[in-house]
Amino acid sequence: MTDPDIDGGRLWSDLMTLGAIGGTAAGGCFRPALSETDAAARALFRLWAEEAGMIVTTDAIGNIFARRTGSEDLPPVMIGSHLDTQMPGGRFDGVLGVVAGLVVVRALNAAGITTRHPIEVVNWTNEEGARFQPGVMGSAVFAGLLPLEEALSRTDRDGTRLSDELARNGIAGPVPAAPRPVHRYLELHIEQGPLLEAEATDIGLVTHSTFMCSGFVDIHGANAHAQIEAMGQRRNALLAAARLILAIEEVGAAVDPAGRVSATVIENWPNNRVNIPHLTKLTYMAVHDTAEGLADINARIRAAADAIAEATRTRIDIAPSHLRQATVFPADLRKRAADVAGGRGLTVREMMTLTAHDALSLAHLCPSALIFVPCRDGISHAEGEWCEPHWAANGARLLLGLALDQADRITEVNI
Amino acid sequence: MTDPDIDGGRLWSDLMTLGAIGGTAAGGCFRPALSETDAAARALFRLWAEEAGMIVTTDAIGNIFARRTGSEDLPPVMIGSHLDTQMPGGRFDGVLGVVAGLVVVRALNAAGITTRHPIEVVNWTNEEGARFQPGVMGSAVFAGLLPLEEALSRTDRDGTRLSDELARNGIAGPVPAAPRPVHRYLELHIEQGPLLEAEATDIGLVTHSTFMCSGFVDIHGANAHAQIEAMGQRRNALLAAARLILAIEEVGAAVDPAGRVSATVIENWPNNRVNIPHLTKLTYMAVHDTAEGLADINARIRAAADAIAEATRTRIDIAPSHLRQATVFPADLRKRAADVAGGRGLTVREMMTLTAHDALSLAHLCPSALIFVPCRDGISHAEGEWCEPHWAANGARLLLGLALDQADRITEVNI
Repeated sequence: MTDPDIDGGRLWSDLMTLGAIGGTAAGGCFRPALSETDAAARALFRLWAEEAGMIVTTDAIGNIFARRTGSEDLPPVMIGSHLDTQMPGGRFDGVLGVVAGLVVVRALNAAGITTRHPIEVVNWTNEEGARFQPGVMGSAVFAGLLPLEEALSRTDRDGTRLSDELARNGIAGPVPAAPRPVHRYLELHIEQGPLLEAEATDIGLVTHSTFMCSGFVDIHGANAHAQIEAMGQRRNALLAAARLILAIEEVGAAVDPAGRVSATVIENWPNNRVNIPHLTKLTYMAVHDTAEGLADINARIRAAADAIAEATRTRIDIAPSHLRQATVFPADLRKRAADVAGGRGLTVREMMTLTAHDALSLAHLCPSALIFVPCRDGISHAEGEWCEPHWAANGARLLLGLALDQADRITEVNI
Repeated sequence: MTDPDIDGGRLWSDLMTLGAIGGTAAGGCFRPALSETDAAARALFRLWAEEAGMIVTTDAIGNIFARRTGSEDLPPVMIGSHLDTQMPGGRFDGVLGVVAGLVVVRALNAAGITTRHPIEVVNWTNEEGARFQPGVMGSAVFAGLLPLEEALSRTDRDGTRLSDELARNGIAGPVPAAPRPVHRYLELHIEQGPLLEAEATDIGLVTHSTFMCSGFVDIHGANAHAQIEAMGQRRNALLAAARLILAIEEVGAAVDPAGRVSATVIENWPNNRVNIPHLTKLTYMAVHDTAEGLADINARIRAAADAIAEATRTRIDIAPSHLRQATVFPADLRKRAADVAGGRGLTVREMMTLTAHDALSLAHLCPSALIFVPCRDGISHAEGEWCEPHWAANGARLLLGLALDQADRITEVNI
């Protein structure tokens, strides 16, 4: 039996090709979920999957499954991530995990290998949550964590409904978006942090995710004429928001590095230059290594908001989002990944993930592995995001070995 | 000859009727320019004008002119203001000046009076600038101060083009939106300040307007992952904006009451909760009694922005808008207004206007008068805006007398 290897040149070429679809002058990518460019990237993925002999289906939320048949009709080993980007984002976040799946399948094809379990390469819809919130959407619907109807009813900043965009761009398919048996889920992703590069470690094996939550803040002031009302009389919701943004940043500085928090989203009414704003909405994003630490962040922000509301004569309501519990990845699958990596001369370390990934959804359905490779300076969600070609190839090599290990039970049981 | 008087009951009824079109639960009005409710208010204005025997025409920007024929084909005495409101605003700002014009015409009709000059009651399009900016739009186009094409190309927050809304709601008419000879322009408006009510003075005669300008601020930071980037590494455009909002408010407090300034508009990119914002735009609105004072406000804000940019490692660009010079209203027309008011037992005072009005546009075309009546607690651009019925009637009474004085030259030259 030929010992298969991945085609690193093709992996890089696919990454650069997809990066050109929505590519920005600064070397990033602007490809929000369900946009024209997302539709183009999806078409390319389907083309490449069919060229590799795979059967492509799409479900009601637009998740695309490219299936390589196994020798038995068993639940598949899924390899996936997402093709949508931030607005703008980079060329690697998400894309790497999808094209690496195709590279793995091509390697199996070239080596003439059949696996017992089918292998499915998956593109999950709207992981980024940049245009439609929440993110990690397609995988959450698939895993039964988010009702399909709730996802379909979301609107973007311009009021466009997600279901309309799915229909307009011909993205939704006939397969129900619902849980089905999955044997394993494997996701390769850039670290989005500086540790692997700093240590010159090839591979990060994720043990668990951080605790995270958002806070949705409504600040109620009083509309008034900005050219007339005396400064001391103004009950300016935007001014209260500015004070709270600073207070939130101070909380973040106080808990760093165990946690982080910033206000990141703002909307303002009537947002007309001659009017003192009467309503300003803020959203903050908080993470912490512990549930207690996250609760402490929320409590500090609530206390700051109370003081600001009194000082500015505004009302400040805060609704913290459902706390996203830490997800723990199974140790035995991680151990198999470490063994495979070791067998291929790759250095590994265990680490936590500070960000959400589709693997956090799939971990509710089946044993899952989240595999990190380095990215330059830990930068992501930015046009300067970068992953060296050999970093990406190392990750794909581990993915191939682990997929063979998990899907090819034939050799293991020596039939 | 019958001595005409206005019908105060009808004036109030018309104000309340229009206030119901877009009326809010809190007693305000939400009737942005070129909305469905604006179209309904316009239809009502045309109906009432035609009932009063007037000829109604509309120009290319949607300004509506209701003409009562004079005995000679001379330039008209115009009486006008606007029917659009803030989002939400009150029931008097603008509306009073339009319905008072209709009440004046009805009074002339009832008394059987013919004037030498025609009288035109005008509804100017988009005075508020709440939905489409800039405000004072229709009158500025009519006065040749704003190119029609520039106005037509403006878009609202949802990207809807002004020209499309003009067409969709059947608001634009065939008359060119361009300057033509106007004999006099008379505008009645609530004060939007507390002076008249506090002094129990019936009428404010406006001498001049304040100096005003806006500043358009672009703050450039760096996009990054909000769950990952260390707090100290963040180049958060929204954080810099928050600091600048506070600094601008301090400048306002320092120059009050000669001037005022607040940041009132904010937009933020990518405005997605998992991202550190890389671009935040602010707009501030500044007024001052003197040009030097306004320049000082801009200079103080620029200095604050420089310090904030350095502290937050962002770039802050500020483009102050064209400074709106003070407009001076002619003393002789004001003197005539004071005489007419005195003859009707109304107390008057001279005052400046702190806000923009269509009369500032028309003052470039012809001798114009801007007449204020009290409003409760100086509140405007708010649902609690209120003008007592007898305050409104006093203003309409002066408007009638002044229109007769300026349009009815027949009695003056004793033909």
